[in-house]
Amino acid sequence: MTFGMFASAFSRHWFERDAVAIWEDRAQLQAWLDVEAALALTQSELGLIPAEAGPLIAAQARSDRFDLERIAADTAATMHPFVPVLRQLEALCGPAAAGYVHWGATTQNIFDTAAALLLKRSHAMLEDAVDAGLDAAAALARAHRDTLQAGRTHGQHALPITFGFKVAGWHAEWRRHRERLAAAEGCFTAAMGGAVGSFAAMAGRGRAVQDGVARRLGLAPVDMPMRPSFDRGATYAGLLGGLAGTAERVARDVTLLQRNEIAEVAEAFHHGKVGSSTMAQKRNPQLALNLVALAAMQRARVPLALEAMVRADEGDSAASNIGDVVLPEMAVLGISIARGIARLLAGITVDAAAMRRNLDLTRGAIMAEAVMMQLAARLGRHHAHALLYDATIEAADGGEPLAAVLQRRASLATPEAAAALREALDPARYLGEAGSCIDAELERPRPPHARRRDGAR
Amino acid sequence: MTFGMFASAFSRHWFERDAVAIWEDRAQLQAWLDVEAALALTQSELGLIPAEAGPLIAAQARSDRFDLERIAADTAATMHPFVPVLRQLEALCGPAAAGYVHWGATTQNIFDTAAALLLKRSHAMLEDAVDAGLDAAAALARAHRDTLQAGRTHGQHALPITFGFKVAGWHAEWRRHRERLAAAEGCFTAAMGGAVGSFAAMAGRGRAVQDGVARRLGLAPVDMPMRPSFDRGATYAGLLGGLAGTAERVARDVTLLQRNEIAEVAEAFHHGKVGSSTMAQKRNPQLALNLVALAAMQRARVPLALEAMVRADEGDSAASNIGDVVLPEMAVLGISIARGIARLLAGITVDAAAMRRNLDLTRGAIMAEAVMMQLAARLGRHHAHALLYDATIEAADGGEPLAAVLQRRASLATPEAAAALREALDPARYLGEAGSCIDAELERPRPPHARRRDGAR
Amino acid sequence: MTFGMFASAFSRHWFERDAVAIWEDRAQLQAWLDVEAALALTQSELGLIPAEAGPLIAAQARSDRFDLERIAADTAATMHPFVPVLRQLEALCGPAAAGYVHWGATTQNIFDTAAALLLKRSHAMLEDAVDAGLDAAAALARAHRDTLQAGRTHGQHALPITFGFKVAGWHAEWRRHRERLAAAEGCFTAAMGGAVGSFAAMAGRGRAVQDGVARRLGLAPVDMPMRPSFDRGATYAGLLGGLAGTAERVARDVTLLQRNEIAEVAEAFHHGKVGSSTMAQKRNPQLALNLVALAAMQRARVPLALEAMVRADEGDSAASNIGDVVLPEMAVLGISIARGIARLLAGITVDAAAMRRNLDLTRGAIMAEAVMMQLAARLGRHHAHALLYDATIEAADGGEPLAAVLQRRASLATPEAAAALREALDPARYLGEAGSCIDAELERPRPPHARRRDGAR
Amino acid sequence: MTFGMFASAFSRHWFERDAVAIWEDRAQLQAWLDVEAALALTQSELGLIPAEAGPLIAAQARSDRFDLERIAADTAATMHPFVPVLRQLEALCGPAAAGYVHWGATTQNIFDTAAALLLKRSHAMLEDAVDAGLDAAAALARAHRDTLQAGRTHGQHALPITFGFKVAGWHAEWRRHRERLAAAEGCFTAAMGGAVGSFAAMAGRGRAVQDGVARRLGLAPVDMPMRPSFDRGATYAGLLGGLAGTAERVARDVTLLQRNEIAEVAEAFHHGKVGSSTMAQKRNPQLALNLVALAAMQRARVPLALEAMVRADEGDSAASNIGDVVLPEMAVLGISIARGIARLLAGITVDAAAMRRNLDLTRGAIMAEAVMMQLAARLGRHHAHALLYDATIEAADGGEPLAAVLQRRASLATPEAAAALREALDPARYLGEAGSCIDAELERPRPPHARRRDGAR
Repeated sequence: MTFGMFASAFSRHWFERDAVAIWEDRAQLQAWLDVEAALALTQSELGLIPAEAGPLIAAQARSDRFDLERIAADTAATMHPFVPVLRQLEALCGPAAAGYVHWGATTQNIFDTAAALLLKRSHAMLEDAVDAGLDAAAALARAHRDTLQAGRTHGQHALPITFGFKVAGWHAEWRRHRERLAAAEGCFTAAMGGAVGSFAAMAGRGRAVQDGVARRLGLAPVDMPMRPSFDRGATYAGLLGGLAGTAERVARDVTLLQRNEIAEVAEAFHHGKVGSSTMAQKRNPQLALNLVALAAMQRARVPLALEAMVRADEGDSAASNIGDVVLPEMAVLGISIARGIARLLAGITVDAAAMRRNLDLTRGAIMAEAVMMQLAARLGRHHAHALLYDATIEAADGGEPLAAVLQRRASLATPEAAAALREALDPARYLGEAGSCIDAELERPRPPHARRRDGAR
Repeated sequence: MTFGMFASAFSRHWFERDAVAIWEDRAQLQAWLDVEAALALTQSELGLIPAEAGPLIAAQARSDRFDLERIAADTAATMHPFVPVLRQLEALCGPAAAGYVHWGATTQNIFDTAAALLLKRSHAMLEDAVDAGLDAAAALARAHRDTLQAGRTHGQHALPITFGFKVAGWHAEWRRHRERLAAAEGCFTAAMGGAVGSFAAMAGRGRAVQDGVARRLGLAPVDMPMRPSFDRGATYAGLLGGLAGTAERVARDVTLLQRNEIAEVAEAFHHGKVGSSTMAQKRNPQLALNLVALAAMQRARVPLALEAMVRADEGDSAASNIGDVVLPEMAVLGISIARGIARLLAGITVDAAAMRRNLDLTRGAIMAEAVMMQLAARLGRHHAHALLYDATIEAADGGEPLAAVLQRRASLATPEAAAALREALDPARYLGEAGSCIDAELERPRPPHARRRDGAR
Repeated sequence: MTFGMFASAFSRHWFERDAVAIWEDRAQLQAWLDVEAALALTQSELGLIPAEAGPLIAAQARSDRFDLERIAADTAATMHPFVPVLRQLEALCGPAAAGYVHWGATTQNIFDTAAALLLKRSHAMLEDAVDAGLDAAAALARAHRDTLQAGRTHGQHALPITFGFKVAGWHAEWRRHRERLAAAEGCFTAAMGGAVGSFAAMAGRGRAVQDGVARRLGLAPVDMPMRPSFDRGATYAGLLGGLAGTAERVARDVTLLQRNEIAEVAEAFHHGKVGSSTMAQKRNPQLALNLVALAAMQRARVPLALEAMVRADEGDSAASNIGDVVLPEMAVLGISIARGIARLLAGITVDAAAMRRNLDLTRGAIMAEAVMMQLAARLGRHHAHALLYDATIEAADGGEPLAAVLQRRASLATPEAAAALREALDPARYLGEAGSCIDAELERPRPPHARRRDGAR
Repeated sequence: MTFGMFASAFSRHWFERDAVAIWEDRAQLQAWLDVEAALALTQSELGLIPAEAGPLIAAQARSDRFDLERIAADTAATMHPFVPVLRQLEALCGPAAAGYVHWGATTQNIFDTAAALLLKRSHAMLEDAVDAGLDAAAALARAHRDTLQAGRTHGQHALPITFGFKVAGWHAEWRRHRERLAAAEGCFTAAMGGAVGSFAAMAGRGRAVQDGVARRLGLAPVDMPMRPSFDRGATYAGLLGGLAGTAERVARDVTLLQRNEIAEVAEAFHHGKVGSSTMAQKRNPQLALNLVALAAMQRARVPLALEAMVRADEGDSAASNIGDVVLPEMAVLGISIARGIARLLAGITVDAAAMRRNLDLTRGAIMAEAVMMQLAARLGRHHAHALLYDATIEAADGGEPLAAVLQRRASLATPEAAAALREALDPARYLGEAGSCIDAELERPRPPHARRRDGAR
């Protein structure tokens, strides 16, 4: 019985296989076992358990030796999420080591530390995916640094820009998220505080055990090993929510620009891609639209992560069960969204002629500010604005070019004024510092990658 | 690769198997095929397609003849969620009927109608589950109609109640949801409007086709076949959100009442249930806590359903992809939560002695209102409140019973006053109409069940 | 110090004054006093308090006699939200009646019943606003019953529709919300159960008191007077969330259709309306855009209402404080949104020529389904789809009309085929049942209005 | 007409006056004017406008000279949120400078920069408030470093801790938020890119103008002046959401610990504080409960901030209107919550005797892990767990102390075993490293305060 959007044959292609592979059942189990192994090895080293026990346990901590179906059945029967795993591990270890498995730890230590381990792997993959998006955006911005396009605000033509400038704006937002991700290292911590976080069952060597486990797993030891603290997870979820917000903005913009009447860009199309079961002509921005859907589903998980911070006492499965589910889902969504954006931007087709055509659509009205600023030097900004306000209404009502209306204004009827007006009405002359803004954005250094800081297995 | 909370070996026991079975891949596929079959049969009957085509198509509309893995691969390749299914169906139908498959319909017609079909099945299962919860609550309320307990507000003892009264309050809320569910029939509709909802490709018989499809599937024909309308889905999601709210309230109350210091109720325990991998004594309210988690996850999907109402133009997969994912998830969560509540209430252990013990904990202060109302007849409510305010502070500060403090008050020092006071301090005499409220609640008729109105396959 | 979007000089025009007036401080206070008056009068009638006390209390229950600033200060000092009101009421009543104020009730009884009273008033205003929206939509749909327009899905041209058909789809969704509102009467209840809902302080006449209060206030007596039940409030919030979802869909569609490149509709414009401080030409759909913002703010309150259902024990201000804030906000937002939609639709300008122009933009590709259905009779739907798939790609790549490409196909080169093709390419002939769907929608009866059922003061 | 929770006489005491004062109408207006003044002064300096214009404009940029009521009326009439302010400013400036007001800027530049200015002020106040909470938590943790208490997980007794250890856990979470706040400086930026972010109307000096404005206002110049980028605002909102999550956790824990049956802590009480209008004895944790409500309202705004990131094109008031409303609300909520936590922790009363009493409630069962670890050295952890599992069930079923049951076990019947058992059952000996964890936490350096880095007006 296959169910759930991550598993279903009808939707699993929305998600990146290697991102899912980080968290799928065997990998999840292996991560738990990795933590148990690190714990046992550290404790053998420190003399908390016999020297041979650690290596024996570590040797059995291999998920392929476990019976997942039995774990599933025993979990339902015991109503405990981890004791069935422990029982199999103990059986595998044999009498010499079975008694030293999970020494002094509590289930949530294992779960939280394993989650940090997997999240850190996911994080490196995410940074790659965001970097790929930055590469694609940078190439697009560079290629269209000077491609004129109508800038729009509130759905209406505003001023001319270049398409490269728009894309550089996407790049900037995406880059800032990348910088935030680079600062998120503190989220990946190992915690071995035991049942209530006090290291009570660690014979006074709790901190040392925790340090050892963290070192073996490439994580940071947690500062205070309090089980009910989920602020790191919620913070990371917030970062992913922000990434989704930007991804959705970009994907929606692409969708808008691909509308038939605008038709300035198009998502990559290949023969065999089908837009509709009934309308043969359809070339839908399917990837972009699905990115919007995935981003909304990602954003919707952020409040859940925040709510999961509210944990009673020294531990509260009502909240930790939520965190255990929501972080892996968000990690997979995050990578899938980031890769999707990279693919979208890398594949996009740009129609510069359509951009130019649309720019001329308002017959000069889009240049109203340029004309106003020219007049403002003489009339003041406020009077110039009033003059243009009336002129653009007159032009729109009469279906005339703005130039025609303006030339009827007495004050603009001189040859010099007409020449100046022609100049003011040229979009290519009213791009401000768009070009240098693009250049500066593309030259900003990208933060270093997590992989280079990660020596973990 | 198993991933996602509905699929994972570590969490799938949270969800009811038969609820998942309604929506799992083969069942989902079968529902789509059921709609295609109903469409073809209706169109043959109405003469839109050859008389033999409908039965031929219907005969092949069996999900076990389809190759799910190929569908998954082709879906990724075509980037279309349904064309791969159609292609296999056409191949199965052979030349005589292949050309009449999916006649005049669009993918979303099939998806929406199939979703209504499955949601209606899920709905009947949900009503059963809610009824089971009502049965369990009613039995509990009846059994403890007169079991004294401290009523609490804002976490502090307020007035005496009976445990049956508290449970009757849970029952009432649950019953009102049941009534709302009974009124939700309008959510299950068949829509066959085609690509933009106008029945353009139905040769003028669109309404008749839609009526026929609806009749065959046991659904109501949609009033206006507009694809971008998701108000029914969002409304149903809202009902499920409400159910989750109540479930969470009940589960949290149980968790509170099971705390060691209160210990008035306990979730069912069986030998083999394990509370902790390390603390052998633990008897956690695991079911109740997990219900809280599931309810929070359910509530978090409601805003997603509302957001998915915002669909551009005549169709918008950015939003409909969300709806396609979120409704099945919510349906499964809803049944799992409702069954969980029924199980929780059916298994609960009540410790009437602990309830009585806790009731006496404040040494009479919980009866302050009763005393005040008695004095109010003489002093006025406001002066009586002021007197009791001071007396309860004095009692609390001195660690004395309220009676002792009150008896020192001159106005209460007469024998008659003392006798009256004793009476006012008796919790069993200050239950108001709790008993008759319980009786009335349990006698309210339960709304009829959807199954009895549902003749669909 | 003015702060908050409802109060600020910069945003209060977003909200309907009369909707705010229902809930503003004096009105809120008056509603509380109305409940106290109804309680006292009922209790005098039933003999629970002296016959003269009720009328005396009712006579003083006038908000203009209260000192709001002192209430604010005392509320902060006592940390109790209602005792300061009671103290002023007692002082106003004088010794003869002061002692009988608030007899047997608890604060939340007053708050919840007053909220129901105000919500019921708000509800009548909302039904009016929704009706106004239906009127505007109906007029628009009727006027443009036959105005051809491109139907679009996934942002791309799909099939021809009429603008009236699109609007009828908005109407249908809005109407269904209206029907849901008409069924929401059960949300407006009076509750007088006292501190824990058991009528303990009502001398055995609690139900009778509650019935009397309800009757006087035009509300229904609550079935079970449990304070922690907020399912009615959350249900109403869900309805408002649904309305917001539809409003946002409509407002976003208008915004899209007003984009310069599409320019099929325009929000009402008046001289003096300013689109930009700097771009004089701007005619932004400001109303529509702000409706989108308000709708998002409304949707975001639904999860808060659901979360506020989770109340501990017999009362829990952590949750009820949320409900007390969120329902009034949502009521005001709801009316403001509904009125906004009515205003938007009533003021909209339609450019039928632009609609026609856009319809022809794809040079026939929008008619691909029509052609396919024509060919399907001969070739089968699947082969016809494949033929059109290739033809539309060829047309798009070559920048040719679809007709030209098709006429080169051997099978379509006969004069009969050419004639049939011309017919299939005529949008006006491919509207299906759009017209009759509009007619049917506009003829559906509107549910009766709450005002006609409401005899309350 | 006063409406809205921030303004109402009934709820405005929930919010800190000085936090509201940052954003109230006059202050908001002043911030806009401050930006206009900084813009004009910079432009005079750079020669974009006459040298005298800047000082003239700056001299009039005083909110007390503006007519707020007229602004409100004109805003409704023009449907523009800022042009009415500009018109008054122009009128004040007189002919010599009026024409140079708002030169080259667009409304959203002013709004966004002013919001950054106010948010930075709010941020400094918030850091103070969080520091006050840290001080209070530190004092409490220090005072109760060795006060024994039952540690609880899943609502059930787990292991002994100290109350100081619990509080140190609150402190740690709060401190990490403080560190995140200290890293949030990048959120406070000045943007002067004009209508579409390209500095088109700045005569090639846009960057220089922006740098000058930023310097004058104590903000950082934005890297890319794109109007539709709200990632900074959403990031800050996420931080506030996280703070709310922790605040709610602490406030809920206090509420739990104050329940009558637990009674280990109590919120500050003063004579005159009223818990109930009818139950005189009530000492509710009103502050804590209201903090829970405020925190939930804060969390509910995070998704709104994330949704407001999705802005179309080069500007989109549908989204920016949300951001303009939600950030000030969240800033005020954030400070009010943080101050509330500080007040709550500073005022809390601790009953160490009750803590000790509760610790003994399970008659030794809470020490099961300690006994298990002792036995584990001999039996292995897994066998020891099984032994304790049965023993604790036996003890619970028989109502016996755990010691009694264990002493009946043959293997524990020796005098040495009995002595060891006594030791294992002593909670004071099983605190692990709780003490040193507290000490370490309280010694961690606190990040520097924003105020010391802020030279702005």
